[in-house]
Order: sequence, then C-alpha cells, then structure tokens
Amino acid sequence: MEMRLVNALATTEALAEVFSDTAMLQALIDVEVGLARVQARLGILPPGAAEAIAAAAYSEPFDAAALSRAARSSGTVVIPFVQALTDRVRTLSGAAGGFVHWGATSQDIADTAFNVCLAHACDRLAADHDALSAAIERLSDAHATTVMLGRTLLQPAPPITFGLKVAGWHAAGERNWARVTSARREALVVQFGGASGTLAALGPAGLDVGRMLAAELGLGYPDAPWHAHRDRLAAFVTALGVSTGTLGKIARDISLLMQHEVGEAAEPGGRSSTMPQKRNPAAAAVAIAASTRTPGLVAAFLTGMVQEHERAVGGWHAEWPTVAALVQATGAAFEALLGAIDGLAVDPVRMRANLDATGGGVFAECAMMRLAPTMGRDAAHALVQRAVGDRQSSGRPLVDVLAAMPEVTAHVSPDELRQLCSPEGYLGAAESLRLQLLGRCTP
Amino acid sequence: MEMRLVNALATTEALAEVFSDTAMLQALIDVEVGLARVQARLGILPPGAAEAIAAAAYSEPFDAAALSRAARSSGTVVIPFVQALTDRVRTLSGAAGGFVHWGATSQDIADTAFNVCLAHACDRLAADHDALSAAIERLSDAHATTVMLGRTLLQPAPPITFGLKVAGWHAAGERNWARVTSARREALVVQFGGASGTLAALGPAGLDVGRMLAAELGLGYPDAPWHAHRDRLAAFVTALGVSTGTLGKIARDISLLMQHEVGEAAEPGGRSSTMPQKRNPAAAAVAIAASTRTPGLVAAFLTGMVQEHERAVGGWHAEWPTVAALVQATGAAFEALLGAIDGLAVDPVRMRANLDATGGGVFAECAMMRLAPTMGRDAAHALVQRAVGDRQSSGRPLVDVLAAMPEVTAHVSPDELRQLCSPEGYLGAAESLRLQLLGRCTP
Amino acid sequence: MEMRLVNALATTEALAEVFSDTAMLQALIDVEVGLARVQARLGILPPGAAEAIAAAAYSEPFDAAALSRAARSSGTVVIPFVQALTDRVRTLSGAAGGFVHWGATSQDIADTAFNVCLAHACDRLAADHDALSAAIERLSDAHATTVMLGRTLLQPAPPITFGLKVAGWHAAGERNWARVTSARREALVVQFGGASGTLAALGPAGLDVGRMLAAELGLGYPDAPWHAHRDRLAAFVTALGVSTGTLGKIARDISLLMQHEVGEAAEPGGRSSTMPQKRNPAAAAVAIAASTRTPGLVAAFLTGMVQEHERAVGGWHAEWPTVAALVQATGAAFEALLGAIDGLAVDPVRMRANLDATGGGVFAECAMMRLAPTMGRDAAHALVQRAVGDRQSSGRPLVDVLAAMPEVTAHVSPDELRQLCSPEGYLGAAESLRLQLLGRCTP
Amino acid sequence: MEMRLVNALATTEALAEVFSDTAMLQALIDVEVGLARVQARLGILPPGAAEAIAAAAYSEPFDAAALSRAARSSGTVVIPFVQALTDRVRTLSGAAGGFVHWGATSQDIADTAFNVCLAHACDRLAADHDALSAAIERLSDAHATTVMLGRTLLQPAPPITFGLKVAGWHAAGERNWARVTSARREALVVQFGGASGTLAALGPAGLDVGRMLAAELGLGYPDAPWHAHRDRLAAFVTALGVSTGTLGKIARDISLLMQHEVGEAAEPGGRSSTMPQKRNPAAAAVAIAASTRTPGLVAAFLTGMVQEHERAVGGWHAEWPTVAALVQATGAAFEALLGAIDGLAVDPVRMRANLDATGGGVFAECAMMRLAPTMGRDAAHALVQRAVGDRQSSGRPLVDVLAAMPEVTAHVSPDELRQLCSPEGYLGAAESLRLQLLGRCTP
Repeated sequence: MEMRLVNALATTEALAEVFSDTAMLQALIDVEVGLARVQARLGILPPGAAEAIAAAAYSEPFDAAALSRAARSSGTVVIPFVQALTDRVRTLSGAAGGFVHWGATSQDIADTAFNVCLAHACDRLAADHDALSAAIERLSDAHATTVMLGRTLLQPAPPITFGLKVAGWHAAGERNWARVTSARREALVVQFGGASGTLAALGPAGLDVGRMLAAELGLGYPDAPWHAHRDRLAAFVTALGVSTGTLGKIARDISLLMQHEVGEAAEPGGRSSTMPQKRNPAAAAVAIAASTRTPGLVAAFLTGMVQEHERAVGGWHAEWPTVAALVQATGAAFEALLGAIDGLAVDPVRMRANLDATGGGVFAECAMMRLAPTMGRDAAHALVQRAVGDRQSSGRPLVDVLAAMPEVTAHVSPDELRQLCSPEGYLGAAESLRLQLLGRCTP
Repeated sequence: MEMRLVNALATTEALAEVFSDTAMLQALIDVEVGLARVQARLGILPPGAAEAIAAAAYSEPFDAAALSRAARSSGTVVIPFVQALTDRVRTLSGAAGGFVHWGATSQDIADTAFNVCLAHACDRLAADHDALSAAIERLSDAHATTVMLGRTLLQPAPPITFGLKVAGWHAAGERNWARVTSARREALVVQFGGASGTLAALGPAGLDVGRMLAAELGLGYPDAPWHAHRDRLAAFVTALGVSTGTLGKIARDISLLMQHEVGEAAEPGGRSSTMPQKRNPAAAAVAIAASTRTPGLVAAFLTGMVQEHERAVGGWHAEWPTVAALVQATGAAFEALLGAIDGLAVDPVRMRANLDATGGGVFAECAMMRLAPTMGRDAAHALVQRAVGDRQSSGRPLVDVLAAMPEVTAHVSPDELRQLCSPEGYLGAAESLRLQLLGRCTP
Repeated sequence: MEMRLVNALATTEALAEVFSDTAMLQALIDVEVGLARVQARLGILPPGAAEAIAAAAYSEPFDAAALSRAARSSGTVVIPFVQALTDRVRTLSGAAGGFVHWGATSQDIADTAFNVCLAHACDRLAADHDALSAAIERLSDAHATTVMLGRTLLQPAPPITFGLKVAGWHAAGERNWARVTSARREALVVQFGGASGTLAALGPAGLDVGRMLAAELGLGYPDAPWHAHRDRLAAFVTALGVSTGTLGKIARDISLLMQHEVGEAAEPGGRSSTMPQKRNPAAAAVAIAASTRTPGLVAAFLTGMVQEHERAVGGWHAEWPTVAALVQATGAAFEALLGAIDGLAVDPVRMRANLDATGGGVFAECAMMRLAPTMGRDAAHALVQRAVGDRQSSGRPLVDVLAAMPEVTAHVSPDELRQLCSPEGYLGAAESLRLQLLGRCTP
Repeated sequence: MEMRLVNALATTEALAEVFSDTAMLQALIDVEVGLARVQARLGILPPGAAEAIAAAAYSEPFDAAALSRAARSSGTVVIPFVQALTDRVRTLSGAAGGFVHWGATSQDIADTAFNVCLAHACDRLAADHDALSAAIERLSDAHATTVMLGRTLLQPAPPITFGLKVAGWHAAGERNWARVTSARREALVVQFGGASGTLAALGPAGLDVGRMLAAELGLGYPDAPWHAHRDRLAAFVTALGVSTGTLGKIARDISLLMQHEVGEAAEPGGRSSTMPQKRNPAAAAVAIAASTRTPGLVAAFLTGMVQEHERAVGGWHAEWPTVAALVQATGAAFEALLGAIDGLAVDPVRMRANLDATGGGVFAECAMMRLAPTMGRDAAHALVQRAVGDRQSSGRPLVDVLAAMPEVTAHVSPDELRQLCSPEGYLGAAESLRLQLLGRCTP
C-alpha cells in the first residue's frame, strides 16, 4: 500500500499506486525498453540488444530507495536509473549495455515516463468522474420537483428546486471534465529530443524514433520536443485545478445543507471520536481540503514554467511532486463526493419547512413584480416593503399580510396571491434550466 | 489616463483604460439599457420606458467615486449604481424609474458588464498576441541557419539554431493563444437569472430576455445562469496564466542571452539612472514580473471558486481585482516582448564564438555516438571521456585531441571527425522541427 | 478620490490614497530631496544645490501619466522621474541639476519611497486594527455568559459562550498584529547602496548618507543594502497575509451565524437590489474576499524572491502591485469587520433555542464521561449511544431519556443529570480561557 | 527508507523519515500515552489504566495502511487510530480500554502529534541551517578580497567582492532562521481542548491536563485551544516559505555563476546521462525547485485559514500534506546548498577576467562621479558617455580612452584615473558591509 498517514486524506489508494515507486519504475523501464525496441526495429540497435535490455530491465526490481537517494545528487532519478540498468545489461549481456538510453537525454525519459503514469491516472480519474457525474444526474432527476430555498450570500432567496441546484453541479462537472480531457490529449505526448532537442545524435532517424516510441507507449506525438515549454502540462494541471474548484463548491454546499439548523441533506459521514450523537461531513471535508490545496499547487506549477533555454534549472525539477499531488487531490475529491452523493440523505420536508419558515419573505420580489405593472414599481416596492415590515413584527406569513391590504387586493385577488406566493408558483424556468444543464435540451 | 505609478509596470495604457471607471460605468450602463430595450421589445416594459432609461443613463457621467464608496457597504457596485440610475430616470421621466433593472439581480449586471469589459480586453490582447507572434515568426525565419549553443541547466549542450529556439517560443505562444481563445468563447457569456437564477420574476419570457440580451451585447448565451459556478471564467483566467508563463520563459531567455558574458542577443532596453554604459533588459523585466505575479493571481481566482449555494459570500466578490490584474499583466508582457523582439539585436558571430569557446566539448556526445557502433558504447564512452579530460587540461579543441588518438582514427578519419564535430554537421532535425513548430509542416 | 470601481471592494479610501499617484510622487520627491539635504549637510553637495533641488521638486506636480508611461520602457518609474526632476532643477538652477540622485541607484529611491508609503499604510492599518480589536473585546465582554452551541465541522458540539468564541478572534488578531508590527520594524528600512550596493560612488561617506537618510525619512537603517534580498519585505507581506486569514475566519463565522436558519448574529449588512426583505452580509463578503485574494498575493511576492545577483530582472519589478494590493486587502477587511462587529446584532435567545433544538444531543459526551468512571467507559458509551438513538426516534430531550433509564439513575440522580446536561453546567473552562485569550490572566 | 521516486528531489532522507508512517504513529501513540499518564498523575484515570494503555500502545506496530484507508471515511486518521488502540487495550486489559483518549477530541491528538513531528523536523532543519550558515560564512571570509563584477539586471555593474555577495546570503539566511525559530516557539504548542475547546469533559482539571501534557511532550502551552485559529502554524509555515525564497536566490546566483560563459564558480554538480563533458548544477536545481514550489504551498496553507466556528470542514484537513511538503522542501534546499557551498569551486582569475572584459565600462559611473564636482555633473556625464562610446567602437579600455581625453586629464591625472578605475579602488564600503552582514560589527 502506497498511501501514507500524512497524506491519507489527500489521495485515493488507486492514485497513490499510480505514483508509487513500483509504478514509476515500471514506467521508466517501459520507456527505456520501448526506446530500445523501436531503435531495434529501425536498425539503429544491433540485433539482440533490445531483447537483452528488456530481459535485464524486467529481471528483478530496481532499488527504489537507492535511486531516490542518488537522484538528488544528479538532479534527476533518470541518471542513476540508466546507470543501474546499464550495469545490469552489461552484466547479463555485455556489449548491449552500451545501447541503453541510446540517443536519449534524461529528460526524454523522465517526461515520457511521467506522462505514462499520468495516462494511468487519467484513466482512473475518468472512471471516477463518470461515476460521480452519473450519481449527480440521478440525484437531480430524483429531485426535479423538490422545492427548497434559493440562498444567495447565505440568505434566503426565492425558491429553486433541489434538482436544479444539483443539475448546476452536473453541468460544471461536465464542462470541467471536457476541459481535462482536451488538455490530457494535448499534454500526454512523448518527449524525445536528445541532448539539445534536435535529435542530432540519431541522425535522420531521430524523428521516426520519437514517433514510433509514442505509438509504442500509447502517447501522442508532438510537433517537437518540449523540454523547456511546459504549457501543455500547465493546461492539464490548471484544468484539474478548475475541476477541483467545482468539487469544493459541491462539497461546501453539502456541508452547509447538513448543518443541524438547516438539515436538508446529509452525507453518510463519519463518526466523532468523542460525541456519540455526531455525524461529521467527512467526505465534504476531504473534498474541500482538496480544493483548498489545489490553487497553490496550480500556482507552483505555473511558477515553474519560466524555464531557461533548452532545459531548466529547477523549474522542471519542481514538477513531479506538484503534479502528483494535484492529480491525487482531484481523485480524493472525486472519491469523497461519490460517496457523499450516492449516500446523500435528502429531506424534502425540511426543505419545505425552511422555506415556509421565511414567512414568505422570499416572495416579496414576486409580489412586487406582480403589482408593479399596474400600480408602478415604486409604489409596489414601497407597499411590499411595508408588508415585509408588518410580517416581521407580526410573525404572520407575508401572503396573509398582503391579502389583508386593500391596496393589494384592488389589483390581485387573495387566491391569485396565494398561488403566486407558493414555491411551486414561483419557480420560473427552473425545470427548463435543469434540463439544459443536464444537456437534454439546448438553450 | 488610467494607469497608476504603483501599477505602471503591470499594465498597458490600453488595458488600464479597459478597466477604468469610465469603461466600467459604460459597461454597466450598456447592460442596464440593453436589458430595458430587450424587455421593451418583448413587451415586458411599457412603451417609452426603455427610451427613458437610455436617455437618463447616457445623459451625464455617474459619480464613480461615490459609487465606489457605496459599493463596499452594499457588497457590490451594482446596488448603488442601480439606485443612482433609478433616481435619475425617476427625476427625468417619473414612472419609468420603476422599470430599471427589471427582473435582474445585481450579480446579473455585474457579471455581464465585467464580461463586456473582458471582451474589449480580449480584443486588445488578441491584437497584441498577433503582433508578437508575427514578430517571433520573422525572427525565427531570419535565423533559420544561425547556429548557437544549446543550453541545458545553463550548461553548454550540442548546437541548435537560433531559429529553432525562437520557433519554440512561437509554437508555445500559438498553443497558448488557442487556449485563451477557446476559453474566451466559453467564458464571455451573459449572466441573467434574477434573484435565485430561475428567472421567476419574469415568468415565461425570462429565457428570451437573457438570449436577446446576450445578442444585444455581443456575448454568448449559456445553458443557465452561472452565479455560483465560475469554472468558465476560471478556465479563461488559467489560460491567461499559462500564456504568461510562456511569455516569462521567452523573457528569461532574452535576459540570459543579453548577459555581457554571453552577448548573443539584446533587446533595445532601458538606460540606467547612474551607469552611462548600461543597457538594461527593461522589457524582459516587465514580462518576467508579469509571469512572477500571475501564478498567485490564478491561485486567488481558483480559491474563490468554492462558492456557496446560489451566490457566494466573498468568493465572487474577490474576482474583479484579480481578473483585471491578470489580464493587464498578460497585456504588459505582450507589449514588452513585442518591443523586445522587434528590436532584438542578434549577434550570430558571438553565438558562434561562444560555441567555439567550449572547445568542442559539446560534440563529445556526437563523437561517442559515432564510435560506439564499431567499438562498443562503453569503450567509446571511456575514450571520449579521456579525450574530454585531455581537452580540458591542454586547452586544445576536442576534435584535435580526438584526431590525435589512434584508437579513434582507426574508426573515423580526421576529416569525418572535423565534419562531425562542426555545428552545422550536428544540428540533427533542427530545421524540420523549426518548420513543424511554425506550423508549416506536420510532424 | 483614488479608489476605482474595479477595485472598490478591495481597498479603503485611506489606503487607496496611500498608493495614489500623488502619494507615490510625494514619497519619491521626499526621498530625492532628503538625499540631497543629507549630502549637503555632509558637504558632498555644493552649497545651494539641495535647496535648489527641493525648490524644484516641490514647485509643481509631476506628470504622473507621463512618468507611468515612461516607466515601462525603463523598467522603473524612478528613471523618468529622476530625469524629469533633473530637467526641472537644471531649468531653474542650472548646475544643481547635476547633483540630483547623487550616488544613488534607481532601486535605492524606489525601495525607499515605497517603504515611506508602506509606513503611512501601516499607521492606518494600525489604527484600524486597534479599533477592531477594541470592538471585539467589548463584544466578548458583553457576551461572557451568553451560551451557544459549539460547532465543529458545522455540526453541533457541546456549548460554549459567545464571549469565548469572540475572545478567540481577539487573541488571533492580537497575535497577528504583533507579528505585523515586528515585521514592519524590520522591513521598513532605508535602501541606499548605489549602483552595486557598495556605496562606491560616495566614497567613505556613503554609510553616513544612508544612516542620515533613514533618520530624515523616519525609516530604520539596515546592516547593508538589500537590493536582491527581499526577505524582510516578504516577512512583512506574509504577516499581513496571515492576519487577513484570521479576518476571513471571523467574517466566515459571522456569515454562518447570520444564516436565516441559524439567526444568532447579524451584521448591519447591505440591501439587495431586488429583494426588499433581504439583508446581505456585505461586510463579511468584503472581508472574505480579502482573505480569498491574499494567499495568492503572498505567493506572488514569495515567487519574486528568487532574485538574480545584485539586482533582479523581474522579481523586484513584480513587487509594487502585489504589496499594494495586499496592504489594501488587509485594510478593506479591517474596515469591513469593524463595521460588522460594531453593529453586530446578537440574539442570545436564538442561540439558546438552537442549543435546545439539539434535544440535548450535545450533552451525550457529558453523560458518557460522568457515567464512565463508575460503570466503565464502554458500558457508558453503549448506554449513551442507545439513549441518543431513543432521543432521535422519540424526539424527547436526551436528559429525559436518560432520566428514564434505570441503568443511568443507578449512578446519577435525575437532578444531577439535569444540572449536568444544562449548557451552563457544561461550559468547562470557557470563562478562564476567555480571560486568557483577552490577555487578562496568564495560562 | 521513506523517500519516494516521485518525491526524491523534494525532501531529504531525514525529513522523509520525520513524516513517515512509523514516525507519525509514534507521535500519535506518544500523545495518547502521554495524555493517559498525565491524567493518571492527576487521579483522573484509575490506577493501572495508563500503564495498560502504554503497554498496549507500544506492544506492536499499528497497521498504517488500514488506518490510512479508514482515515478518509472519518475525516481524520485519529478516529480509526483511537479505535484500534482502544480495541487493543480492551483485549489486553479490559476496562482500561474505556480510558483511552479520555476527554480529548480527535483534533487535539492530531494537532499535538503533528507538532511533535514538526519539532523533530525543526531540530533537523536547525542543524542543516547551522551547517549551511557556517559554510557560507567560511566562504565569505575566504573571498573577502576577491573582486568580481557586480551584476544588476544581469548586466555588468561596478565591482563588488565575492565575500560581500556571499555575506549577503549569510545575513538573509540568519534573519530567516531567526524568524523560523521565533515562529517555531510560538507554533509548536500542545492542542488540548476537548470537543468544543472548553475542556468541559474534564471539569476543573482540564487546564492542568493540557499544561502537563505539553510538558510531557516538550511542547509549549498556549493561552487556549486553537482548533480553528491556525495563525501560529501559518506564521511558522510562512517563515519557512520566506527562508526557501532566499535559498532559491542563492541557488540561482550559483547557477548563473556556473554558466560556461561566466565560469566564476561551480558546484560539484551532477553528471549528464549523455554528455560526458557536462557538469550540471544539480544542487542548484534542487534548491530552485524547492523555492518554485514553496510559494504555492504557503498559499495553500493560508487559504485553509478561513476555518468555520470551533473546528473547520476542510481547511484543517488540508494542512498535513502542505506543511509536510513545505518542511521537506526547505530541508531539501538546505541539504543541496550545503553540498554546493561546501564544494564550491571559485575561480577568482575568471572573476577578474570577466571584470576586465567589460573594458572598464563599469567604471563609467566612477569616472563621472569624480569629474562632476569640478566640471559639473552634466558635462561629466556627457563626457563619460562619449568615452563609453569610444570604448565600445575602439575596443580600448575605458581608462585608456579617458586618459587620452584632455578634458579629462585637465581634472584628473592618468595615474589617479588608473587607480580610480581599478576594481580595488572602487569597492566603496564593501568590506565594512561584509562585516556588518556577518554580524561582526554594527551598522
């Protein structure tokens, strides 16, 4: 298990595996072996060399601890890794050792291997996204007609449906994922350029090596090496960051609905260590924590973009921990929210009760808009303002206060008033918008 | 002039204007007037009301200072602005005052007006990008065959062409701008949802009002109001942030090439206040400053994404200064680099001299790759290592050291060696890559 | 008025003035004139030169717009400013023009002038802090015995006093301000080193000039010029950032207490543009917005710390907008919270009602701790767990459920139970802690 | 070994251990056992309970993987840990199991245990700082009289000594460490407040428990629990961030001095995977990478400060990975720079050669300052400007050009000129400043 206590809330098990020593070594090996095989096919490597390299590479695990230690004095893990692989090939097959890493630079291997890992991570994130998105859509459908308070600046506003609120989560999630997917396609490309990015060491075959290596590893093939141009990865990283912002928003909504005083929805949650009665929004906490951390991680990546010449001092070297943390944070938020949404206990009765508890105050706008065309908006506004004052001092529902005002009933019958000032009567385009947000009809 | 001393390096004049009080007020007015006109066309407003509102709105400037002051106690500038507009309409035309801001919520106006400003900003940024991109392309073409040192980790690496380096800048810039453009299309949409985002106050016509308002203002029309979902703006903001990262990279490259000890390229630069002989990389400083500030600004926007329910407390209120600063930083970097690139003095002789000054050390890889297939890579590596040592102690060029080694000349003639170890002979796919980066052929 | 609409929520009027063109120019002038006067006193400047420089400098305003424009091509506003000042002195007094900016480098003037502005800003922030701190202390005292729910993870927890909660705000504010004050003392020092920071141009008198200039301007005097070492400013900036984090926490607490469903406290707030009944937490929004923006601004400053050699390319040039934004954000949060706290309507009845509405669930811990020593914690935990279940299904208060359980009354009398499970009976060290937090007794 | 490949450049071995599962579990155990012991001493726990808890806790390792997994559904690792510890005590000693975690809340344990780990981390960082600081001081002393170019905006400026430059690094490092130390003292305090922070569950003894627990663990004791007030940790975290900014600055300086074209200093560095001749600034890369990542990590912590009520949803949960990453980044930078500084190869001959290669251009200021008092600054400036032009076109040293100008020699003899325009003659207060920066005399 690759998760750590210090990091337990910040990842999922699956994503911890993706960036584990085992997985990273696998990717490094796959890239070096893939390179050898491609070069063998092109006749660049002598017969047998690629097989010898593969046999050595896969023979037994490398010593990740030793490589990590050596990485710091080399500035990259690739240099000691290539050394270890070469030593092993040499031991097993002599001369083939000389063809390990042929024509490559260490950043070629590091970037390509990391992108192989990111591809695995993306596959897992995609599954998480799909599951969450489906759960959210089901939740929205289940509550298409469940009325609740709209809340702006944490104050009561005219009613919405819970289905509409949830559809808003859905649409943002879909937009975010479309951006991540597009950024992934662009970013997860092979890196292969040799020492200065010109492929000079391989002569005319260099471009072919890169193209075939990309195919071998299931990565895209870019217009040129991108050792010091990290905008594609940056676009991927920022797309994840934006996505996690939305996940944090959903989690915050849930945590607010779950307050004892609101009580409209509750995630399954976690238990307290001391308070037997308590159910904590643990999933929301995990997702909000992810959205708390990601902006800074995005900033860290962008800061590193200012890279020197053909390969950077430091900017590049800062990327791995940042990207791995960001991917895992996104995954942790997905996983937590999936549990929260799937197990969400929704209380429509409480939703209605909280709405009613405003005494109809949220229909003040509605009444004003209805009266304005006939009596003028200013008069209507003043009238409703007065009714709101009466409501607050008397505790009577606004609709009753209004129905008792002759200036009002001169224009609107008490029945129409009652109809108007009901949640169902004041939902506007809520259902159309919900369907549009779910992509079922076009705006 | 809207630029400030404290902000002088952080904007352009044009972009300072875009976010000036005058321009912001214009946008706010245009949105409220546009709303009234659209509602008049739909028969929602009584005849004459829209004209009265327009007449009042455009009659004389609003007091930006008073509005700014009042904005803080309201949490938004829109509330005092609507109050001021309403008062004015009421004074001029009586009842029409009641129809100002009909069915809208303040965030509808704030978001839409800000997007109108952003559209103007984008037009200016687009022009800046285009100009810079063209200048960079010209520079690359002019130096397609200018050889220079590749530099990795700020150390000499095999040669590249200056044209290739510059083409890398170009391709990153084009990718960035494509992302900004795509994000702009998605983000610069109208906001119109009324108090809770359901358009309830306007009844069935609400959706039409939004659609027509978008058309009136030249903005896109989204699937639903997005008061608390800021992912589209976030994607726009991050695309700018990524773009500025690349601009910082270009500027850093220039500042490094301009070092006295390197002397390969120089921007026109600025004068020192005390040192008569000095030319400072002022444009690079401005662009690097922009790329220093943008990651934090991006983080600030992403932090604000975790917004409560149907409208946030604070997250939304944090956006304007952040986005305006980011847009202006991007523009400042574009403008500065345009001056730097257009006026860049390139010194191909110095480039060659710096290459030669490595004594051919950068061809060590080349020699090793040439010798390896015949003598084995290990032997080749050891041999070349020894030659490099001799070169360093003797000061003789590597090619001469190699040409004097019988183990070498047994495999490669001195002539071939000299050919191999020349910059022109070791450029690999540089020109193909350059053309690919400029989009003139496909990878 | 120097505030802008785009920035209206992000500053106070007073702090907008501090960084206005007028104030910045005043500071630049004061530094150059101060330098001349000090040098005159030391006999470095010929008689009359300092007076001539002062007379010219103060004769009429400089053209801030032109200076801002020129700043970008110079990389600093100081170069065109010195040019303009020199031209003016020359026009008025001929040869004295040659002694403007004598022995200084532009960064000497820029840093020193900015620190002069920051000193003014700090004075204003200090007054804001003091006022807020006093208001918070009064609020805590007024509610020393007002019981309310503790809330952890937004769920009910055992009771606290409102006075304790508010005292927590107070202590954090005081700690923060102590850090800001200490950082200010360290950071607001003169910068004077000349071209390379050795004061070579002034010969042996250089150190005296700097020391006297510091005294002249009321700034501290550091061990050496700090052109490329920005840690002191960074410490000041981060202290402000930490401070604003606490202000955001206070504002979030207020916004949560002000929810309609909670209703325990309300800031005076702002009106809605459409909903007559609504009172918005406008002050909380402004303060939370500040705390949303500051982490990124802090990051931007820290990013710029990696400065090259004796003066940076870009890192330094990024500072002014960042620091000015951060200082103003802090001030905006102070001002907003001062209004919120001073005008806070606290509802102790509602606090008690919300506590009671938990049905005593928050005393489950209390009951368990009381029973455990006699019956064993496990048995006690199981028993209380069962009572909590009964309470939830029956709706009866926990204390009644417990009082009806013979296993409980075997150990604790119903009277003791009732005493135990009252808020006043379960406040623990709340008042001691409150007094410690207010600094009135030591822990 | 607890380091990971993905994180290899981002930590040291020692600091990876500090945050390892083993160390974190040890801290959690120490806190729970310490709590039991303290409560036993106070008579709160029955005789034998504390020994039973200790015996069980230390009997065999806990299953970190299982705890990590369970942490996510609980929102904290403490809940499953307490459960596991309780189960074990119960199995071994029956009733004593009921006294595990007595009166504590999970955040009490989490915060206190993490602070125990941070105390260990600080001890290691302090040793690293001390070693680095001593190495830097030695380096400064060794080069007190080694002249080199000052460089501003990466352009030549008047000479400095290498000892002065290095003393600047030293002083910044000392200031930073003083801030970290002060912040550590404030931040590394015990957390002990129980469910709502009032210590209600423990009655009057609560305060004593906290005080004695602090002593038991070697932590400080604060005025009150600080569950939702994170400013002390924030101040610690930002102090580390500022410190790492300076380390990045030092590393950047080294990487720039190590450029082939500059060649003034070189760290031992790492080998390239393909280029036999190459020595990479691997240590600088590691340190710059750290300073690239820390601003975003600081921002992430500050973002999390806006915590709700008595315990946050998410803000708190975001802290561990951020703080651990930041501490390790700081340590990685210290370790890397210690290697770089200790093994730094300095080339005073090259320093002088680079200075000479400016042709005396950097003395232009000097000449101008010398001539100005007699001929007027304007005339002097114009004259020197002309000489600089001549120098650039002719290639002759500036001093020769000046010595050939009668307007110059009318005022200054060629001998004095030669003296003036020598590096040693134009170092100003360099040595005084160096001693001040090293704290050997006061400014």
